[in-house]
Amino acid sequence: DLSFDPKEHQHLRYNPLKDSWVLVSAHRMKRPWAGQVEKPPEELIPRYDPRNPLCPGNTRANGEVNPSYDSTFVFENDFPALQPDAPDPGSDQHPLFQSKAARGVCKVMCFHPWSDVTLPLMKKEEIIKVIDKWAEILEELGATYPWVQIFENKGAMMGCSNPHPHCQVWASSFLPNEPAVSDRCQRAYHQKNGEPLLVQYAKQEAEKKERVVVENSDWLVVVPYWATWPYQTLLLPRRHILRINELTAEERDSLAAIMTQLLTKYDNLFEVSFPYSMGWHGAPTGPHLKEDNSHWQLHAHYYPPLLRSATVKKFMVGYEMLAQEQRDLTPEQAAEKLRNLPEEHYKTREP
Amino acid sequence: DLSFDPKEHQHLRYNPLKDSWVLVSAHRMKRPWAGQVEKPPEELIPRYDPRNPLCPGNTRANGEVNPSYDSTFVFENDFPALQPDAPDPGSDQHPLFQSKAARGVCKVMCFHPWSDVTLPLMKKEEIIKVIDKWAEILEELGATYPWVQIFENKGAMMGCSNPHPHCQVWASSFLPNEPAVSDRCQRAYHQKNGEPLLVQYAKQEAEKKERVVVENSDWLVVVPYWATWPYQTLLLPRRHILRINELTAEERDSLAAIMTQLLTKYDNLFEVSFPYSMGWHGAPTGPHLKEDNSHWQLHAHYYPPLLRSATVKKFMVGYEMLAQEQRDLTPEQAAEKLRNLPEEHYKTREP
Ligand SMILES: O=P(O)(O)O[C@H]1O[C@H](CO)[C@@H](O)[C@H](O)[C@H]1O
Ligand SMILES: O=P(O)(O)O[C@H]1O[C@H](CO)[C@@H](O)[C@H](O)[C@H]1O
Repeated sequence: DLSFDPKEHQHLRYNPLKDSWVLVSAHRMKRPWAGQVEKPPEELIPRYDPRNPLCPGNTRANGEVNPSYDSTFVFENDFPALQPDAPDPGSDQHPLFQSKAARGVCKVMCFHPWSDVTLPLMKKEEIIKVIDKWAEILEELGATYPWVQIFENKGAMMGCSNPHPHCQVWASSFLPNEPAVSDRCQRAYHQKNGEPLLVQYAKQEAEKKERVVVENSDWLVVVPYWATWPYQTLLLPRRHILRINELTAEERDSLAAIMTQLLTKYDNLFEVSFPYSMGWHGAPTGPHLKEDNSHWQLHAHYYPPLLRSATVKKFMVGYEMLAQEQRDLTPEQAAEKLRNLPEEHYKTREP
Repeated sequence: DLSFDPKEHQHLRYNPLKDSWVLVSAHRMKRPWAGQVEKPPEELIPRYDPRNPLCPGNTRANGEVNPSYDSTFVFENDFPALQPDAPDPGSDQHPLFQSKAARGVCKVMCFHPWSDVTLPLMKKEEIIKVIDKWAEILEELGATYPWVQIFENKGAMMGCSNPHPHCQVWASSFLPNEPAVSDRCQRAYHQKNGEPLLVQYAKQEAEKKERVVVENSDWLVVVPYWATWPYQTLLLPRRHILRINELTAEERDSLAAIMTQLLTKYDNLFEVSFPYSMGWHGAPTGPHLKEDNSHWQLHAHYYPPLLRSATVKKFMVGYEMLAQEQRDLTPEQAAEKLRNLPEEHYKTREP
């Protein structure tokens, strides 16, 4: 009779934000890898490139000229997936052929005038300016749009087509799938347990410690119990906060600090500028501003693809697409690895 | 006042098998691509490689020697994500830290003794042997396991680590997320509309024609109305069939024929061995064999990643992971492109 060891015995874990399960098969890290190897990220990026449409003073695809910005810079995406004025596809539809109107705006936000920095290599005051701008955009677009998705695709491996440090903001006339499911799950949990799901979760993780990567007095970063990507993390405030624009000056300061810690550890893991997609989830906006959204808790998801090294990622393919997501190391193993990494960036460390 | 044109105006489409929406922004194909370019697939694969563990007569990682097989060959995966005897993680759990036992078996199935062929380059009789083996494995593992996932990861881009033509079969003690959601959706539709969802859908598409890629008297391949991947297709029988082992000899013959047509068109699209993940979904098995599963209809999903060329794929990243899946051409455009491609494989065509 065997006793259960999560590192040796595959099992399922429940994701309460998605109402779905992940298959954890940690013994699988033992298999040799003979598959695709990715190109390592470009390490020699010029600070200024006259052909890069994101650099200060350059001309973009639509002929507009960027200002000589010296902090953050926001502009409308020149090839937006969402436009404010698309007509309605019309109703009277068969249940198997249903469509709906989609309207919105897509913005691009540069983090810094230089192309050769990333968030963990920026100064704290510079990161605070990014956070301030996130809060400002959420407030501005959230005044009318029900959902404002702030997200960063970092690295060519994550479909990012420009090395200049930047994120995107897509605001939509509809609540997209992921936040809609998360809204439903958080609401049901709150109703049943009398406390917001992620407020309770942060307290539990702060006590248990085994999945904590970094923490400070306002924030907590964990590899969530239900993580699907190998080094996925969840960034959580300790206080109950609905939206990013509610952060106090102190919380913006401590957020900048914990982001630097997390992203430095990410870069240090394989000594490479760590690719990921990240994004903020908070209570819905627009018409939802008037509703009770106390079941929501602000948080950021980080989804990095790398598994084994700087060039071997986790493939979420056949079984994952057709049946269920699967991971090859336990969340506790991933958290321990990240926790034990140095807090000084490998690029600035003394030789 | 603009009139709605799906090719020009972004809109949402409903996926009735997943109860979710996809954002269709077809005007986005106009943007230039400056991002990551993939390695094209290896075209020079030796027919027999003494170091390839999938070739006839070779020794695998665990020391077992493959027979000199001359058709299909099935063996247990040497690094299985599911094993038959994992202990139970135990109950008495906090609602935010829920785990469950997962047991199963993982098999690998070679399609052919040669490494340098793929399904569309195999003879019809050889493909029928693959279909027969799929039916046999479903029957064998489905006798006890509730779900038997047959899937093929094709190409290094899809995490496939061995060029030898093969698929995998993972049977599990649980119903995974994807089929669980599909089961719920098909059941609700059947109850409400009196006919199985996919039986009704096939009839509608056979009439409308605009999303049909290929068809014969038993089968239909469409780019579904709700496709997320650029050239995603759905392979559907016209008759109501619950599971793959119910196929008649004639239906196996016509299935082999339509697979050849579809996969030849896929390869011809960018004149490259087209990467994809595919898999079969049918009514659940094991304990579910005794239940009424008449809401189910057998079908196969093909999820190919390529978007623009043999080396530029669609990235399902930031917005897609955090908010909603998004596509850059309409399903009708994709279907038309595939439909108009020649049925002779580019590798065997006269010069
Ligand atoms: O089993 P393989 O082919 O080595 O592995 C591949 O398929 C599996 C099932 O979809 C995935 O979990 C792996 O990430 C992928 O690399
Ligand atoms: O807008 P970008 O950076 O050109 O494009 C990238 O991010 C988008 C939003 O996640 C995705 O839809 C694209 O597939 C990806 O390549």
